[in-house]
Amino acid sequence: MPVSTPGITVGVVGGGQLGRMLGEAASPLGIELVVSDPTPECPASPVARDQVVGDFDDEQTLRELAERSDILTFEIELADPDVLDAVSEETGTPVHPAPETLRLIQDKLVQKRRLEAAGIPVPDFREVDSAEDLGAALDDFGYPAMLKAREGGYDGRGNILVESEAEVEEAFAAIDGPAMVEKFVDYDRELAIIGCKGADEVDAFPVTETIHEEEILRETVSPPRTSEAVQERAISVAEDILAEMTGRGVYGIELFETPDGEILLNEIAPRPHNSGHWTIEGCHTSQFEQHLRAVTGLPLGTTERREPTALANILGDVESRQDGTLYGVEDALRTDTISLHWYGKREVYNLRKMGHITTVGESPATVLSLIREVSEWLTFADE
Amino acid sequence: MPVSTPGITVGVVGGGQLGRMLGEAASPLGIELVVSDPTPECPASPVARDQVVGDFDDEQTLRELAERSDILTFEIELADPDVLDAVSEETGTPVHPAPETLRLIQDKLVQKRRLEAAGIPVPDFREVDSAEDLGAALDDFGYPAMLKAREGGYDGRGNILVESEAEVEEAFAAIDGPAMVEKFVDYDRELAIIGCKGADEVDAFPVTETIHEEEILRETVSPPRTSEAVQERAISVAEDILAEMTGRGVYGIELFETPDGEILLNEIAPRPHNSGHWTIEGCHTSQFEQHLRAVTGLPLGTTERREPTALANILGDVESRQDGTLYGVEDALRTDTISLHWYGKREVYNLRKMGHITTVGESPATVLSLIREVSEWLTFADE
Repeated sequence: MPVSTPGITVGVVGGGQLGRMLGEAASPLGIELVVSDPTPECPASPVARDQVVGDFDDEQTLRELAERSDILTFEIELADPDVLDAVSEETGTPVHPAPETLRLIQDKLVQKRRLEAAGIPVPDFREVDSAEDLGAALDDFGYPAMLKAREGGYDGRGNILVESEAEVEEAFAAIDGPAMVEKFVDYDRELAIIGCKGADEVDAFPVTETIHEEEILRETVSPPRTSEAVQERAISVAEDILAEMTGRGVYGIELFETPDGEILLNEIAPRPHNSGHWTIEGCHTSQFEQHLRAVTGLPLGTTERREPTALANILGDVESRQDGTLYGVEDALRTDTISLHWYGKREVYNLRKMGHITTVGESPATVLSLIREVSEWLTFADE
Repeated sequence: MPVSTPGITVGVVGGGQLGRMLGEAASPLGIELVVSDPTPECPASPVARDQVVGDFDDEQTLRELAERSDILTFEIELADPDVLDAVSEETGTPVHPAPETLRLIQDKLVQKRRLEAAGIPVPDFREVDSAEDLGAALDDFGYPAMLKAREGGYDGRGNILVESEAEVEEAFAAIDGPAMVEKFVDYDRELAIIGCKGADEVDAFPVTETIHEEEILRETVSPPRTSEAVQERAISVAEDILAEMTGRGVYGIELFETPDGEILLNEIAPRPHNSGHWTIEGCHTSQFEQHLRAVTGLPLGTTERREPTALANILGDVESRQDGTLYGVEDALRTDTISLHWYGKREVYNLRKMGHITTVGESPATVLSLIREVSEWLTFADE
């Protein structure tokens, strides 16, 4: 595929930080982005050729996006696979990854059943349609266990840890819809891998350790602080998972490492993922460039890591929703090897992902230590 | 200076490839770009918030740009310093670097006189206002010598090598305006340094070797294939030059290394420069991020080199002006460590700068060898 101007236009459903980082990666490749997002002047808009303002599942919005694009993709699971299929058929604009993959992944129960059937190691799980179902499952699994809404959750929303029999009724009522329950995994460590499916090739970025608090990603470090054997097992599981996925693009694959060094699948996102942002500085090819190469049919880039790399999310640390102003940036930028990625969100609220910082360096220990020190300097609280 | 959204808007006079790479670097810092350029849908436009269409020296265009910006800068020397001064005064929008620096640099004779007076080593030069002046100067300097238009030249345009007395009349007539002549420097190597002036700090990126043919930059490699002592001397000359420059930003400083290891100044550009594009992959901070940090008053980033890095320009290799379609890109992108930077220009003509590729690697020899091999695969000629 030769390069020219105007080049390929990729239409992205969703214009948040993932769309913004796709836009930053598109320009050097001669690819233009058009995004659709309900928020005018969304985070991706300064680096996109244009934005179609409308909801993620609005057919007219997606039709307009498809008409202006050579290829459609999505950066948010809230995209509607049926609408994507319909506008793709109508306009002839292909969608990558395939809407059927999005459909599969959106329903956590369907996802887990399919992957378990394919031999992927997953935690014990069960469908629960009532508080009674939940109670019965927990009699088998023991407490605590994780109750999950089958659809619509992200960043821990839609997940409830059920710690005792007394909490069963309230927990099921809070989910308020189709659910599943998963046996609690007493893991040593969380790991993640960005898998890549190109036109006729499959690859994966190096394993990353992810550190969550309150189910929100706080930090990542690659290589992870675990053995080579565990990393190889994780890559092998990721490869098996990718074989089950249909359609080109990158996939965020979240894993548990158990105390005996086994790997279990946690969740999959069929798009660039927070656990892969470190690749911008840490690898020759970023996950964003890789996604664009994959969906446009260009060859995949190398996934080799250049240096140990750590990332810290910049999260809202304020009580109430308000205009977001980040203090401490100058000290961070004065620190060698620290890179800032601001997401362009006007308002901040508690734990909202507003940006991230990364550093590269000598070892997982040194980069994690530095990124933690620097992230302490950053705050949205008035000085 | 805290970061928020909407953040600082930088208005850039010129929306070519330098503006485009400024746009790619602005987004992670939370900076938005508005560019002015006479060509609608100029290369920078997909990664700029907006474009004001108009000439580089058109007062109304620059006024509109200034009104929409917090800070003005330029990516092309054709910007008019008097107009910049006028609109800056009228709108209260500061300009970095200072228009007086642009004025100083635009006139190659004034530039050389000022720098020679400051003790910077420069080749012998003389003002020439007639063919007689030129003949007299060449009687002193000897043949060949470089005749240069005092203003408006770039990429070798406006420069004529005068090789014998028989060429004097024709050469002067071709310049057709105020000129200077410079004693021909029989250099071993050309070097370049990107200097950086921040709000209250000065720094320089590592020395780069630049390889020209027909006065057009073809390849760069950093570190250069020369001694540490020569590199230190080059940095020292660059620091002396920066001390003479007024205003924040990055400066492309082109140097000659003579056979006895001395350094002479060739030319200065008060903006990001082709000789610094390798910093995107090769350094923690790119020259584009550094320019934005400097003009907005953020701290400068480290200029440390991550790895040996080579660059090759993708130049038009066609006879006539035509729509530009680059072939061979897939093979290039399939090569580990090769990064593509497409400039978004619709038309190609002979030797037009259409993009560049870089690679990082083990040593100057290996990266230069690889980049030369890969650049041979790229062509605009029909397959």
